[in-house]
Amino acid sequence: MKPTIVRGTRDFGPLESKKRQYIIDILKSKFELFGFMPLETPCLENVQTLTGKYGDEGDQLIFKILNSRLNESEEKETIESEFKKTLQNKYTSKYITEKALRYDLTVPFARYVSMNSNTITYPFKRYQIQPVFRADKPQKGRYREFYQCDVDIIGSNSLLNELELLSIIDKSFSKLMLPVTIKINNRKILNGIAEVIGQKDRLLDITTSIDKLDKIGFDGVLKELISKEIPTDKLSEILLFKGSSIEKILFLREYLKSSEIGIDGVNEIEYLLNNTQSKIIDFDITLARGLDYYTGTIFEVKSNGGGLSSSILGGGRYDNLTNIFGLNGVSGVGVSFGLDRIYDVMESLDLFPSIRESNTNLLLTYFDLDGQTECIKLANRLRNLELPVEVYPDIVKIRKQFEYADKRNIPFVGVIGPNEIKNNTVMLKDMNSGKQEEVDIINLIKSIK
Amino acid sequence: MKPTIVRGTRDFGPLESKKRQYIIDILKSKFELFGFMPLETPCLENVQTLTGKYGDEGDQLIFKILNSRLNESEEKETIESEFKKTLQNKYTSKYITEKALRYDLTVPFARYVSMNSNTITYPFKRYQIQPVFRADKPQKGRYREFYQCDVDIIGSNSLLNELELLSIIDKSFSKLMLPVTIKINNRKILNGIAEVIGQKDRLLDITTSIDKLDKIGFDGVLKELISKEIPTDKLSEILLFKGSSIEKILFLREYLKSSEIGIDGVNEIEYLLNNTQSKIIDFDITLARGLDYYTGTIFEVKSNGGGLSSSILGGGRYDNLTNIFGLNGVSGVGVSFGLDRIYDVMESLDLFPSIRESNTNLLLTYFDLDGQTECIKLANRLRNLELPVEVYPDIVKIRKQFEYADKRNIPFVGVIGPNEIKNNTVMLKDMNSGKQEEVDIINLIKSIK
Repeated sequence: MKPTIVRGTRDFGPLESKKRQYIIDILKSKFELFGFMPLETPCLENVQTLTGKYGDEGDQLIFKILNSRLNESEEKETIESEFKKTLQNKYTSKYITEKALRYDLTVPFARYVSMNSNTITYPFKRYQIQPVFRADKPQKGRYREFYQCDVDIIGSNSLLNELELLSIIDKSFSKLMLPVTIKINNRKILNGIAEVIGQKDRLLDITTSIDKLDKIGFDGVLKELISKEIPTDKLSEILLFKGSSIEKILFLREYLKSSEIGIDGVNEIEYLLNNTQSKIIDFDITLARGLDYYTGTIFEVKSNGGGLSSSILGGGRYDNLTNIFGLNGVSGVGVSFGLDRIYDVMESLDLFPSIRESNTNLLLTYFDLDGQTECIKLANRLRNLELPVEVYPDIVKIRKQFEYADKRNIPFVGVIGPNEIKNNTVMLKDMNSGKQEEVDIINLIKSIK
Repeated sequence: MKPTIVRGTRDFGPLESKKRQYIIDILKSKFELFGFMPLETPCLENVQTLTGKYGDEGDQLIFKILNSRLNESEEKETIESEFKKTLQNKYTSKYITEKALRYDLTVPFARYVSMNSNTITYPFKRYQIQPVFRADKPQKGRYREFYQCDVDIIGSNSLLNELELLSIIDKSFSKLMLPVTIKINNRKILNGIAEVIGQKDRLLDITTSIDKLDKIGFDGVLKELISKEIPTDKLSEILLFKGSSIEKILFLREYLKSSEIGIDGVNEIEYLLNNTQSKIIDFDITLARGLDYYTGTIFEVKSNGGGLSSSILGGGRYDNLTNIFGLNGVSGVGVSFGLDRIYDVMESLDLFPSIRESNTNLLLTYFDLDGQTECIKLANRLRNLELPVEVYPDIVKIRKQFEYADKRNIPFVGVIGPNEIKNNTVMLKDMNSGKQEEVDIINLIKSIK
């Protein structure tokens, strides 16, 4: 049997894993610099925790686990008829599936907060770096299993949190040397717009259409809005407005003057623009973000180049996320870094520093069992000093051992032959320069350190 | 709706996550000290990659994913009848499920090696630290989602690899300060025993029974063997033999003298015992390990105390693991550290060093907007020096801000009030000693570093 991998998923070999770890380490260090703490939740969640949180389209993309031991059950007839219903409607019965794979890290976070609200100290600042799963059609930059790196503060209304998130985003991408633009907007502005055009109750319809501006263009959005019977005259002004951040704010103060919530949103954006230290922020009044739980600031990051038009980070403020789990009045704000897309962009822009697939500095090689015994002894001593070293495990031709070092990019090879055993030395070869010299252990350590 | 977590899974809050990370960091550093390289594979695997690899019992424990978009399919009748079959037999159709969650990290590793054998440099040394999933009945120390930390060398027959694994195991637990016993045995010895008692073809039946010795005791194993119609006279000698490692070897040399493979196994064990530096190895001739792909040395680690009788590490040599995927002649050996059980044992033995849930050294607090502005400025400066610091995000009573620092175990609190703004200073309080003094930024940095 020729093995295959699930479409839309990937293996990461040693070098790729090291590069992913490089990104994760930078993100973690920035999250921790601002006092965020790690959280881990399971991949498995109860189906009812997830369904109804991501809209109809999202619900369809949740991977559901087939109940195990179906055939040991006493309720075969019920199960069969429930399955029939599942095939007919979009409904999935608890007799068929009770567990699912998490779709993002935000809903599991809300579940965690609701379940632990008595013991949590608010404001609660957590980060979470784990895989999520979506039953999506695989395509460029879209995977069925991918890592999100989430950072959220819950239990504080202050815009200071938005400012700190902007700072984390800026510092992270700057450390990664990845040139990006941070787009921000505010759902209250979108609320205000819906109010001003007399379509207050159609907010979600409006935002989901505007959200597609990048993909289907101005004409596409217009067409979609018309098909939804939303008047487009006054909306077009918004979609077509060009200007600096200050001009946008002036324009919106006029446009939204009859909407209290709209003006609130403008004030919030103005505060962020006036107080952030970041120079890469773009106030984009057409930024909408699809998810319907956002209520204030929204964030999106796109790479300046790298052939990926989709966003590599998204997020926003949500006032009522934990309400669904019975915990009211806890406002939060957070963003999610897309590890896999960041990786892809950095790879295509060749932004990774020189990273080796292992930490091994020295391969010890030999001709026979006596040499092997000496190599093992020496390796033990070096490892006790925390020096990463390998001993070639099999007695094979020395050429083959050097080949191994070469393919693995190990910078030094030490040979212990009969002479070296006698002299208590190692013949050390620098694989880059090609130079070799007989050294004692002190000089060996000096060289490979 | 009151949210719940899937039974047999756990959330890990900040402190627990940090402790898990502490264990992972130690394991990783030891793996890398010996030249092992990271590998990541997806949680999702094709069903046929996993089934048939873990025996009948194992197959029943594989979580299978319900095919999505069942109801968009054209083949509703086929699906319905296939589902009926699933309910009747133990068979699960590809019309119902094509994907599953990995059951361990070994089979995905074998799949990876088979799919990438052209580009891999052998011997290939990889480690992998990821969650695995089992549809098991949850109980103490048994989870449905848990982390394995695997370390394997593939493409080398040398016993040097076994020696290095023993060294990694010893160094890892020693660094974790966790007292353990490393049990070893060799499948060839078990083969030899089966041969000697004239039951060569019943090896798996014998090993699965012996494997239960810890759980069901000598009488239980005997009863099970008798029910399988395996003669127990000569086997009892093995199960009851007591003695030092040397006595065991002498005993087995006599017992197995008519079995070539048995003597091979004894020689291998003797080599390891003579050459290992570890002092915590116990040669246990009743150690069997359930999995049927092992062909040589087998390993198991148990904690000396901590109330968990089950193993916290297992592994062994497998000569034919990749054969199932069409890649022959690649022998490997590896072990799997059980992160969750190691965590549980360390927690119950109180072995974690003092670990804080965040890196924050300083919380900046204030009375009003002016103070907040100064705190933000100061925080920016300190973070630019990579000093982890937080600013309380909301303008609330100073007492509440101190409470936050106290609950979060933040060692220093800085207050910036009108006086401090005027003097360009901070009132710094050491939360442990209770002492406070007005300091300038240079002395502030000195204190919190």
